[in-house]
Amino acid sequence: MSTTAGLVIPCKAAVSWEAGKPLVIQQVEVAPPQAMEVRIKIKYTSLCHTDLYFWEAKGQTPLFPRIFGHEAAGIVESIGEGVSDLQIGDHVLPVFTGECGECGHCKSEESNMCDLLRINTDRGVMLSDGKSRFSINGNPINHFLGTSTFSEYTVVHSGCLAKINPLAPLDKVCILSCGISTGLGATLNVAKPKKGSSVAVFGLGAVGLAAAEGARIAGASRIIGVDRNPKRFEEAKKFGVTEFVNPKDHDRPVQEVIAEMTNGGVDRSVECTGNIDAMVAAFECVHDGWGVAVLVGVPNKDAVFMTKPINLLNERTLKGTFFGNYKPRTDLPSVVDMYMSKKFELEKFITHRIPFSEINKAFEYMLKGEGLRCIINMED
Amino acid sequence: MSTTAGLVIPCKAAVSWEAGKPLVIQQVEVAPPQAMEVRIKIKYTSLCHTDLYFWEAKGQTPLFPRIFGHEAAGIVESIGEGVSDLQIGDHVLPVFTGECGECGHCKSEESNMCDLLRINTDRGVMLSDGKSRFSINGNPINHFLGTSTFSEYTVVHSGCLAKINPLAPLDKVCILSCGISTGLGATLNVAKPKKGSSVAVFGLGAVGLAAAEGARIAGASRIIGVDRNPKRFEEAKKFGVTEFVNPKDHDRPVQEVIAEMTNGGVDRSVECTGNIDAMVAAFECVHDGWGVAVLVGVPNKDAVFMTKPINLLNERTLKGTFFGNYKPRTDLPSVVDMYMSKKFELEKFITHRIPFSEINKAFEYMLKGEGLRCIINMED
Ligand SMILES: NC(=O)c1ccc[n+]([C@@H]2O[C@H](COP(=O)([O-])OP(=O)(O)OC[C@H]3O[C@@H](n4cnc5c(N)ncnc54)[C@H](O)[C@@H]3O)[C@@H](O)[C@H]2O)c1
Ligand SMILES: NC(=O)c1ccc[n+]([C@@H]2O[C@H](COP(=O)([O-])OP(=O)(O)OC[C@H]3O[C@@H](n4cnc5c(N)ncnc54)[C@H](O)[C@@H]3O)[C@@H](O)[C@H]2O)c1
Ligand SMILES: [Zn+2]
Ligand SMILES: [Zn+2]
Ligand SMILES: [Zn+2]
Ligand SMILES: [Zn+2]
Repeated sequence: MSTTAGLVIPCKAAVSWEAGKPLVIQQVEVAPPQAMEVRIKIKYTSLCHTDLYFWEAKGQTPLFPRIFGHEAAGIVESIGEGVSDLQIGDHVLPVFTGECGECGHCKSEESNMCDLLRINTDRGVMLSDGKSRFSINGNPINHFLGTSTFSEYTVVHSGCLAKINPLAPLDKVCILSCGISTGLGATLNVAKPKKGSSVAVFGLGAVGLAAAEGARIAGASRIIGVDRNPKRFEEAKKFGVTEFVNPKDHDRPVQEVIAEMTNGGVDRSVECTGNIDAMVAAFECVHDGWGVAVLVGVPNKDAVFMTKPINLLNERTLKGTFFGNYKPRTDLPSVVDMYMSKKFELEKFITHRIPFSEINKAFEYMLKGEGLRCIINMED
Repeated sequence: MSTTAGLVIPCKAAVSWEAGKPLVIQQVEVAPPQAMEVRIKIKYTSLCHTDLYFWEAKGQTPLFPRIFGHEAAGIVESIGEGVSDLQIGDHVLPVFTGECGECGHCKSEESNMCDLLRINTDRGVMLSDGKSRFSINGNPINHFLGTSTFSEYTVVHSGCLAKINPLAPLDKVCILSCGISTGLGATLNVAKPKKGSSVAVFGLGAVGLAAAEGARIAGASRIIGVDRNPKRFEEAKKFGVTEFVNPKDHDRPVQEVIAEMTNGGVDRSVECTGNIDAMVAAFECVHDGWGVAVLVGVPNKDAVFMTKPINLLNERTLKGTFFGNYKPRTDLPSVVDMYMSKKFELEKFITHRIPFSEINKAFEYMLKGEGLRCIINMED
């Protein structure tokens, strides 16, 4: 039993009061976990585009004040009633989507889209009682994605916590709780390139580079990186990308350029841009007969995917994935173990490190498109 | 050695002289097979929509005079130079697409879209020398799909012939050389429903009913037939279809109706209509997380497949298939053997039988939408 279990914990959090305005580090009160919930001490967190997107609140109903953050690693401080698979002191990754273990999706081998704990960007409260565990002077502060990791302590549904190897360095594996696993799993679990095959990766942000890393692990012999931003190319070499295509350098559709480079098309493609044109190109650049295209990026609400049916009838496959098809509780621990056994590196994704007090810098880096991941140390 | 080997064979063929006009049964001369070709005696043939479509010549450049026909069974009469895997007397199914055994597609486990012998609807001549093997008074008659089975004798590339069990009844297994295998393979090889799962089949023509038959063989527990023609429903019961939906009976999209019937969507769907709205509905009616939709129908050239990317990102899979993903030479013999071991029935697809002399009746039945398959006996 920790000394704080059952008590409200006052601690520092970075509160977002208004769309697009700097976060304010201030004291919040964190209530104890309710049934099936867990309170964790966040050690490291990082910033992902989804935080930025909802902080900017340009595309959806704003929900403020709110505590953002969903890529993180922490340690269990206390557990609520009914939690049997986690104990105080366990090392965990909080995840923006969960695994109840009971629903049709959790029971299916193929799906990770849990009915109960599936991502919900509109909800600012906990599932069990529709209330927030965060407050300032008795006024509730909204949660974000059920994780709200920009706080020294946070409360998370136990189905959204992956218990990981306690030897794993939390200042690195924290980035496995969202984008990196998404890209890695998109390739390893969904595109499944064979040894010696060719893979095109659209979008060379952190997610795309993780997808390229997956292609390298799978033994792909050609990894073609596609990005409209030529700055991304230098960095991508570290991730095993062997060739580059900038759609802006060509006056015909990039799918044609890639088909020509690869004698009819790549074996696999993974789209990590969120841009609808890139989604269509990623599909149309795979080889007929056996090509598989995997969509990862989250596009604009009004976007429509359009292609000629013959592209499908010629035996191409089109799939989408969510969180790289990993089930958070079942599968994430083994992703951490893959890192521990040096199957891939996380260091090269980490381009910045800052103390919690300077969290707004992470937003600035991302807005400028500088670097890949910025680790925020909660104890500095 | 047959007595006719190396000689021109005069025989009866049904020649199509003009788009949409009755075929004329008359004497044609059939030249001996050239290198890698085989001349076969057709025993039974049947009419498929593709014959009708090119005979009507509404959607493409007309190519006449032509000998149609591509669903058939026959016996090898003589072989050309270099043919090593077929002998005189072998029982064969000619197929509209081939398997050269050498190209990337033939070497891939996943594809059956042979680079050399892939379907070509515009070619009226043989590959090797660009000439026709059919003539009347020295004037060439066009081939169709490399098969031209509406003739007592025809010449086919050896890569387009499946050698089958000689005990198989040719008056039944002839229909395995196109539509029935297409539908069966779409389900068994591509959609791959699990035992106990739900499958929606769009379009209850011969191809769709064969797809339903595949679902029954795979052990699906719910097979939902979807067709705009209510007449199709009675027949479909014989093919294991357990429930019916007519899109015309509902004032909302049929994908919503099916999702409601199945608690979120079917596990698999197979589209066999050629209608673009049905293609989109077939995709959107599969369950998120694990649903797989397979497109079979050949749509209008200008049709565009459109869907919201979220339908993909929610972990649905969209695939197209060609000839049920069967490799003609490698796989068709085992489809015939499945029939021989009573895994499925062919009898229920055969609704009419006529002698060769009455071949134009087969076109009339199909134009009226009457029945499924009409077997034409070449020796009657
Ligand atoms: N499905 C999931 O579970 C999941 C999880 C995390 C992130 N995502 C999504 O993955 C995508 C990538 O995330 P990220 O963090 O790497 O983003 P990022 O912005 O760092 O990288 C995207 C890259 O795509 C490039 N790009 C944009 N349009 C392009 C086009 N038409 N052609 C080629 N390149 C183009 C940009 O230049 C950029 O380098 C986003 O859409 C994000 O929402 C999905
Ligand atoms: N991919 C291949 O290798 C291959 C091979 C053979 C046939 N095909 C194609 O398969 C399709 C089916 O062939 P068939 O011989 O069974 O045709 P068919 O005309 O006998 O059957 C098609 C059925 O679809 C129904 N239909 C049409 N539009 C519909 C809609 N919007 N919703 C529901 N039902 C609808 C019709 O009422 C009809 O019963 C055709 O498009 C054909 O070209 C493909
Ligand atoms: Zn669940
Ligand atoms: Zn994220
Ligand atoms: Zn081939
Ligand atoms: Zn056919």
